[in-house]
Amino acid sequence: MNVEKAAVVGLGVIGGSLAKALNAAGIEVMGIDMDDETLLKARKDGVISHDSFNINEGDEKYFEPLKKADVVFLAIPVMDIVPVMRRLAPFFKKDAVVTDTGGTKRFLVNSINFELPEGVEFIGGHPMAGSEKSGYDHSREDLFLNAPYILTPTPENTKTSVETLKKVVSKIGAIPYVVAAEEHDRIIAAVSHLPQVVATSLAAAIGELDEGGEWLKLAGRGFKDTTRIAASSFKIWRDVFITNGDEIIKMIRLYEKKLEELAEAIESKDEGRIKKIFYEAKRCVERGENCGGGHRGQKEN
Amino acid sequence: MNVEKAAVVGLGVIGGSLAKALNAAGIEVMGIDMDDETLLKARKDGVISHDSFNINEGDEKYFEPLKKADVVFLAIPVMDIVPVMRRLAPFFKKDAVVTDTGGTKRFLVNSINFELPEGVEFIGGHPMAGSEKSGYDHSREDLFLNAPYILTPTPENTKTSVETLKKVVSKIGAIPYVVAAEEHDRIIAAVSHLPQVVATSLAAAIGELDEGGEWLKLAGRGFKDTTRIAASSFKIWRDVFITNGDEIIKMIRLYEKKLEELAEAIESKDEGRIKKIFYEAKRCVERGENCGGGHRGQKEN
Repeated sequence: MNVEKAAVVGLGVIGGSLAKALNAAGIEVMGIDMDDETLLKARKDGVISHDSFNINEGDEKYFEPLKKADVVFLAIPVMDIVPVMRRLAPFFKKDAVVTDTGGTKRFLVNSINFELPEGVEFIGGHPMAGSEKSGYDHSREDLFLNAPYILTPTPENTKTSVETLKKVVSKIGAIPYVVAAEEHDRIIAAVSHLPQVVATSLAAAIGELDEGGEWLKLAGRGFKDTTRIAASSFKIWRDVFITNGDEIIKMIRLYEKKLEELAEAIESKDEGRIKKIFYEAKRCVERGENCGGGHRGQKEN
Repeated sequence: MNVEKAAVVGLGVIGGSLAKALNAAGIEVMGIDMDDETLLKARKDGVISHDSFNINEGDEKYFEPLKKADVVFLAIPVMDIVPVMRRLAPFFKKDAVVTDTGGTKRFLVNSINFELPEGVEFIGGHPMAGSEKSGYDHSREDLFLNAPYILTPTPENTKTSVETLKKVVSKIGAIPYVVAAEEHDRIIAAVSHLPQVVATSLAAAIGELDEGGEWLKLAGRGFKDTTRIAASSFKIWRDVFITNGDEIIKMIRLYEKKLEELAEAIESKDEGRIKKIFYEAKRCVERGENCGGGHRGQKEN
């Protein structure tokens, strides 16, 4: 399918960046948000079309233009996706591909408890790009450049729809990866959700120790980089923690074992064991250095 | 004292950056290293003077020019500082201020078990700047710009020497803070050593899970920022872990409690508790945002 028009629901940092990137790739974008000011800003930026509308608009006649969108992106917190999709479903174009940008995937696949209109397909999506800053004001056209973009089709999806979505993802500069929902949730629990838990706990612990804020004045870049993502949106992460808790807990337990191993090595001044763990870590970081993409300090996942 | 000449011992990423910054500030720098190639590079860069020498040079007549240095920086691993200082001590200028750049301070104060020449003073120093990359090739003139630079004088130091060192630190663009050695070791265990332990454990844990390297391809910026410092120099960190183990272990225990609190909240899907910890963390990060200085991705401490 040739994608000429797309709709983006939720013009936050991810949705706003999607709208900007799609628009830059020559795809007309309809913006859907619940905040008039955000819609106005995106309109003024020339990012979204006249067809854009406020989803809280009482009169559903404004939803009609959605019937022109070949692809619909739901860029909203995980637990809002199904209710919003149900609400908009009657207005989806026949053969439209509907996708989301949520951080967990099993939950969605298991929660779509209603029929999509004939020919409409839902394919889970997860761009490995984001920001610790929230809102349209922090969105950027190049957010997805060289970033991995995971798609989690089910056996029910047609090859055509998957190919359509992969093409759109490539058009915004991201690198599409097709992964099963279960595998996505396990892998991302390790490489995204665990780092978030670790950064959040670290910043919360230091915040408690340093009530007066005097210690942080002496902190260097290491503290800042390690805790940067702890400033991310709570609403986004609450949904991720709740819908992927089982996999996240498994990863926390594995991490705690490694942390304890290092703590014991430090406590007993065991140079050899410190060295072993240090080099395991170094190898992992160096291996990951050329993986993934995006802009330092702009990704959250 | 007016500082016209300085010596930098160890032209790694910190020492090399010090040499470049001092040189740019109009202070003549003598470079001392054990690697001829590094000395040659720094000479070619116009960063260090003809007086520079290889510390492994058998004939100590080459050490003579050190007698001209008003300030000596020992930019080498913590446990090497005392032996190197003892070796060079006979060549220190009368009234010279000797300082280091090590990440722990109590150990040094307690280890200087020899007399410095008359009028020579040692004042511990710790620039809160660094890099996960090692070696002279990664050094940069602006590494210390707006970075905190901690000085840990003892009651035995004269006010004149402390002021001299503060002035030099300001000249390279850093912000001097005077802190007692014990306090330094406690605060830095929280804001620098704990983040290193956390990043190292996280990267080592993920490295073990992702033996094939397939998972890291899907990682975003969050993983990279959170683990960046895990690629830092082992030799530097081994000495820090061993000489500040007691304070580091205390911080790890406090952190583990917070991590467990968050893990339990996730496991029981307790939104309220997740929120509480999330906002504690967010406040800490936001409070720290305008503190410290330097260049994203260039600091390690």
